Amino acid sequence: MNIGVLGTGAVGCAVATRLVELGHIVVMGTRDVANPKAHEWVTSVGAKRGARVGTFAESAAHAALVINATAGVGALEALRLAGDRHLHGKVLVDIANPLDVSHGWPPTLSVCNTDSLGEQIQRAFPEVMVVKALNTMNADVMVHPARLGEDHTTFIAGNDAEAKATVADLLRSFGWRSILDVGGIEAARGLEAYVLLWLSMRSAQETNAFNIKIVRS
Amino acid sequence: MNIGVLGTGAVGCAVATRLVELGHIVVMGTRDVANPKAHEWVTSVGAKRGARVGTFAESAAHAALVINATAGVGALEALRLAGDRHLHGKVLVDIANPLDVSHGWPPTLSVCNTDSLGEQIQRAFPEVMVVKALNTMNADVMVHPARLGEDHTTFIAGNDAEAKATVADLLRSFGWRSILDVGGIEAARGLEAYVLLWLSMRSAQETNAFNIKIVRS
Repeated sequence: MNIGVLGTGAVGCAVATRLVELGHIVVMGTRDVANPKAHEWVTSVGAKRGARVGTFAESAAHAALVINATAGVGALEALRLAGDRHLHGKVLVDIANPLDVSHGWPPTLSVCNTDSLGEQIQRAFPEVMVVKALNTMNADVMVHPARLGEDHTTFIAGNDAEAKATVADLLRSFGWRSILDVGGIEAARGLEAYVLLWLSMRSAQETNAFNIKIVRS
Repeated sequence: MNIGVLGTGAVGCAVATRLVELGHIVVMGTRDVANPKAHEWVTSVGAKRGARVGTFAESAAHAALVINATAGVGALEALRLAGDRHLHGKVLVDIANPLDVSHGWPPTLSVCNTDSLGEQIQRAFPEVMVVKALNTMNADVMVHPARLGEDHTTFIAGNDAEAKATVADLLRSFGWRSILDVGGIEAARGLEAYVLLWLSMRSAQETNAFNIKIVRS
């Protein structure tokens, strides 16, 4: 599949690399095509496998499916640069968290409780099928879930059932076996707010290499 | 131990019952001592075991340890009625969630992100050792963790290490084996915000009988 990964940070690189390994043709989208992190990524995966760098708009235009791995506070602007006409009718996997680090550590959320980044994106791009996914863990866990000691849970939320099925298939190809659909895109409120607990858990455990598993009776 | 349980709802009754079963002397605190739910609780556990009903102030005065199981939006008022002089120097286990249902379902939080109910209580009662605990699950799971299929995780947060050790002991007496200390009382932000995700998980799974387990590498 042709996939656009918007963002050149740890999440963008991890997801883009995994997608290339799985045979997808990936264009990593960046604000500045001279961004050395994007070119290091192309070098690391090998351009011969179809991996290349483009603007946000080139990445989205290339893609059948777009992944938002930008820093959450810049996500809406990045998506505007990607362009509504290049996103129109496509599935957008929103991994971003609206973390505001401008007031120090730990971060707060720039939107929460009565709204979420996922909802903001869906409202700004009503013809895009936004699916919130993978924002509840570290980048390595996202793409290599089997590296943890046992099965654990990831979540999807979005308004379009077919888009969620597409994303669930993609997650299964990463190795995910426990995928819980928590409802419409408004469920992004809980998925994003959970990150405040995740940050505390990370500090307490002094590791990023963890996730949660749902245990039932 | 003499324990005061503030609140007569499902959480207050479940916790108070479990404490009586474990041999503690419990006074359930209520705004209105004629509250039929409180008296039904006394009947259900048997007054001969020391269980009785009192005002918030009588409950707190009786207690060596106080448990806040009130509805979150009324918690600060309930604690003021309990009285600073009756709470002074004691451990206060804060189970409450600041759920605001005034705008319909699903609820939002009346405080979140840059503050939390746990922190509000700690600020309002600086001489009380507030420990946020048990707010991340259904009442039955709180007091009977072994009823779920396998081990799972509960959290504690608070500024006083000795108070957290006391609460951890109490949780172990309920059957908890995996207790993660996530830091100072400011970690209540994450614990309370997680409830937004919990509500989505509950809807998706159509059951209250679940919790999360931390899975590590």
